[in-house]
Amino acid sequence: MSELVVVTYDWAPPPPRGFVRDLRIRWALEEAGLPYRVESTPFRDREPEHFAHQPFGQVPWLKDDDVSIFETGAIMLHLGAKSEALMPKDARGRGEVTEWVFAALNSVEMASLPWALLQFSGDTSSQAFQLFDDFVKVHRLAHLEPILAEREWLTNRFSVADILMSDVLRLIDRFDGLAAFPACGAYVARAIARPCFQKALADQMAHFAKAD
Amino acid sequence: MSELVVVTYDWAPPPPRGFVRDLRIRWALEEAGLPYRVESTPFRDREPEHFAHQPFGQVPWLKDDDVSIFETGAIMLHLGAKSEALMPKDARGRGEVTEWVFAALNSVEMASLPWALLQFSGDTSSQAFQLFDDFVKVHRLAHLEPILAEREWLTNRFSVADILMSDVLRLIDRFDGLAAFPACGAYVARAIARPCFQKALADQMAHFAKAD
Repeated sequence: MSELVVVTYDWAPPPPRGFVRDLRIRWALEEAGLPYRVESTPFRDREPEHFAHQPFGQVPWLKDDDVSIFETGAIMLHLGAKSEALMPKDARGRGEVTEWVFAALNSVEMASLPWALLQFSGDTSSQAFQLFDDFVKVHRLAHLEPILAEREWLTNRFSVADILMSDVLRLIDRFDGLAAFPACGAYVARAIARPCFQKALADQMAHFAKAD
Repeated sequence: MSELVVVTYDWAPPPPRGFVRDLRIRWALEEAGLPYRVESTPFRDREPEHFAHQPFGQVPWLKDDDVSIFETGAIMLHLGAKSEALMPKDARGRGEVTEWVFAALNSVEMASLPWALLQFSGDTSSQAFQLFDDFVKVHRLAHLEPILAEREWLTNRFSVADILMSDVLRLIDRFDGLAAFPACGAYVARAIARPCFQKALADQMAHFAKAD
C-alpha cells in the first residue's frame, strides 16, 4: 500500500476555514477508507519548495509515494482510480464521473468562484456582481435544479463528482445563493450529512485552530 | 474504428467566433489524425435534446458511437486515451498531463474567464475588474511565466494540456493581457502556429459563416 500525504497550509485566516481545498481531498480519503497523513506548508512566506509542488503557491497537493500531484480535480481522479467508493471501475462509469467532475469545476465553480469572491469583498451592488449573479443562477443553478430534483447523486451512486459539486454549491449556500434552488440545497444537505464530510471538516478546523 | 462526432451550434454571433469551445476539440482531433464529423444544434431555441446532451445548454459535446460526452476537459481526456499524439500512455505521463489539464481549466481559466467577461462587457474600470485583473496577472500569469520561459510545452511534449492552456491564454491575449508576460505570449504563438490549430480555426470560422 502506498503512503498518501495531503499537504495543506500550516495556518489559514478564519474566513476561508472550512472551505480550504484540502477538505475535498480529506473527504475523499475518508470515503475510500485509505490511510493518509496531513503535512503543513507555510501560509506566509511560501517557499520555492512549495511552488515546485504547486505552481501557483496554493494548496493542496498530494504525495503518493514518490509522485506529487497538484490540482484538486487531478487528485480526485487519481484517488478515484484507487477506490470504487469514489469512482466505478468500468469505462462508462468512469466517463460519467469524469464529465461531472469537470462540470463541477469548470462549469459551476467557474461561475460561482467569481461570485463568491465579490461576496467576500462586499461588492454585491455593482454591475459586475449582477453579471456573475446571472451567470451562477440563470446559466448554472437553474439548469442543475431539475437534474438534482430527480437524482440522489450526479451519477447512479455517490462519487468524487459529488464531493466536488456539493462543495462548490456549499460555498454558494454560505452566501444564501441557493435560496431559490431547493433541490440544490437538499443535495448539499445530503452530502454534508455524510460522516466522512463531517470528519474532514472537523479535522481541517482543528488543523488550522492548532496554529492560532 | 468508432465514429466521432463533434456537436456545436449551427450559428454564433461574431464576437465569440474563433473562441467557441468546439475549437479545442477540433484541434485535438486534427492533432490525433482521427476522422470526425461536425454536427449542428440550434443556437437559438435550444431544444430539450440539447440539454439531454449538455445540461447547461452549451457546446460542444462529443459522440463516440453510442456514448455522448460533455465538458471539454472530459472530452480531452477521452481523446487523449485514444492517441499518444495527445497524451502519453504511461501512468506518470498521463498524470502529468491530467494535472495541467485541470490547471488550465480550474486555475487559469477560473481567473481569466471572469476577467474576459468583464472585458467583453466593457467594464474595465470597476473595483471588481481590478480584483480579477490581479487574480489573472498576480496570482496566475506571474507564476506561469517562469515555467513557460523554461519549457516548450507544459510536459515533456505537446499534449491536450497545451491545447487547453494555450487556448485559455489566447483569450487573455485577445484583450492584450499578456503584454507583461512574454514567455506566455511566445507559448501561445508556438501553439497557434501549429497547422492543426490553423485548420481547426478556419473550419470553425467557415462553419459559423455558412449560417449568416
